[in-house]
Amino acid sequence: MSDQDRPAQPRVGVVGLGAMGLGMARSLRKAGYEVGVHDLRPEVAEGFARDGGTAFASPGDLAAAVDVMVGVVVNAAQVESVLFGADGAAARLSPGVVFVMCSTVDPGWSAELGGRLAERGVLYLDAPISGGAARAAAGELTMMTSGSAAAYAVADPVLEAMSATVYRLGEQAGLGSKVKIVNQLLAGVHIAAAAEAMALGLKAGVPAEALYEVITHSAGNSWMFENRMAHVLAGDYTALSAVDIFVKDLGLVLDSARPERFPLPLAATAHQMFLQASASGLGAEDDSAVIKIFPAIDLPQPAEA
Amino acid sequence: MSDQDRPAQPRVGVVGLGAMGLGMARSLRKAGYEVGVHDLRPEVAEGFARDGGTAFASPGDLAAAVDVMVGVVVNAAQVESVLFGADGAAARLSPGVVFVMCSTVDPGWSAELGGRLAERGVLYLDAPISGGAARAAAGELTMMTSGSAAAYAVADPVLEAMSATVYRLGEQAGLGSKVKIVNQLLAGVHIAAAAEAMALGLKAGVPAEALYEVITHSAGNSWMFENRMAHVLAGDYTALSAVDIFVKDLGLVLDSARPERFPLPLAATAHQMFLQASASGLGAEDDSAVIKIFPAIDLPQPAEA
Repeated sequence: MSDQDRPAQPRVGVVGLGAMGLGMARSLRKAGYEVGVHDLRPEVAEGFARDGGTAFASPGDLAAAVDVMVGVVVNAAQVESVLFGADGAAARLSPGVVFVMCSTVDPGWSAELGGRLAERGVLYLDAPISGGAARAAAGELTMMTSGSAAAYAVADPVLEAMSATVYRLGEQAGLGSKVKIVNQLLAGVHIAAAAEAMALGLKAGVPAEALYEVITHSAGNSWMFENRMAHVLAGDYTALSAVDIFVKDLGLVLDSARPERFPLPLAATAHQMFLQASASGLGAEDDSAVIKIFPAIDLPQPAEA
Repeated sequence: MSDQDRPAQPRVGVVGLGAMGLGMARSLRKAGYEVGVHDLRPEVAEGFARDGGTAFASPGDLAAAVDVMVGVVVNAAQVESVLFGADGAAARLSPGVVFVMCSTVDPGWSAELGGRLAERGVLYLDAPISGGAARAAAGELTMMTSGSAAAYAVADPVLEAMSATVYRLGEQAGLGSKVKIVNQLLAGVHIAAAAEAMALGLKAGVPAEALYEVITHSAGNSWMFENRMAHVLAGDYTALSAVDIFVKDLGLVLDSARPERFPLPLAATAHQMFLQASASGLGAEDDSAVIKIFPAIDLPQPAEA
């Protein structure tokens, strides 16, 4: 595209400056955007703005100042609060502005949200993200998106600035969330399976490092085995993503399928494993700590400091 | 190693010329070995020998002619039959000969077999394989092995000729089988999870190709998802590895843990899914056909011929 064909750079806002949202706001700033931000913790928004950008006191104030508003909050309830709560964004988003919904939510709810915003003339992208905090900060997320051509026309450069890969799955709001739900099913089952397999190996007396080396080069490998069992080998359960996230996300997977009366035996079993871990007091530890539900195994210990 | 340091090439035999064993015998021949073979189907052994090598009428006759005997049969019962059945090999293996046990078996049984052979002065390698028929034929298997230094001293060049990677896990017979059991736990759970996830996506109306593309580039990916869901996309359930193999292998995983009273919730659930598939008449189809236990989904159909 030549410079004169390029649309004016959209004004962009990010609401929710957790590990993911903060990284995304920073990569947008790095890409040259003037970024507005809001977070329930004003000091976090102000901290961000000290290096460039503007902190807003409410979602509504932020909404009034942007062309694209990116929501990076924990769940559907928080999205509701951002849009329709006190000083909410929905009433102050102008027609033609795009709300980019990055949370992991029930696909049916997401589709409905698209309709509610459309009533106000606000465009909507269903756009769950994957990749973790490090890739968010590097602008290398994966986004699983769906929505109208009109919404993409405005938001596309913003999506590209945050992501290594933007999947465009179709017009129907909810498709992005459906794919994200499928991904979370697999991610959760694979973490629990990795823990179960490593626990069995340790119980049988296989050295943990040797087991990791063989499995990561065999047909039993998964992205999650390779990533999470490295935490178990290091004996480091500092939460990068916590047990309670998969209590929530596998719960969402199961909830999304139940109205269809659709059975998900492995997701249900893995969910019980994360629930057992959480009930044992491990909810805030790294999700790989689900291995601690297996009794009488000698887990690798962290190296002496 | 200079030529004069190289030990004399061991005489090698392969018993069991199924998809794996035949490929392994061929890669040994390609590597320059004079290969003796035996199979319950004499025509298969003779067919192999027509292109080089020797067909033997019984495991015992083969055993008397080799330095390394590689067993590539389906299960422990068949290994028992090869070694201790009519015209069995055990009585005719000379002291110092190595029996290489490549089947997927209970690790405790494998350790015991090592002891029984040691009583006769026969060396033993516990050496389950992974990689599938194509890699067997290319000499690019993964072998998960354990055994004594004396056994490796004789058999090492034979292992290397069949494999891309030989893992040497320690002296204790059974360690190789323990790692293989852990791999099969993961492989079986991942196939069933891939089927469950793809089924959920199809039920929700996500296009199968788009789902495959996103998942294989996301944190939900596994080796098995990538490999087996390609069969589902193609609508091709020609068995490369059958449903009934995982009925057997996950059964073995569960059996190996039960004496230790060790719980394996995901392996147990996945086993039930393969049993349900087998009970529905899908036992001889490709293991990816486990997706057919999910009701009321529109699976991709094969392209018209």
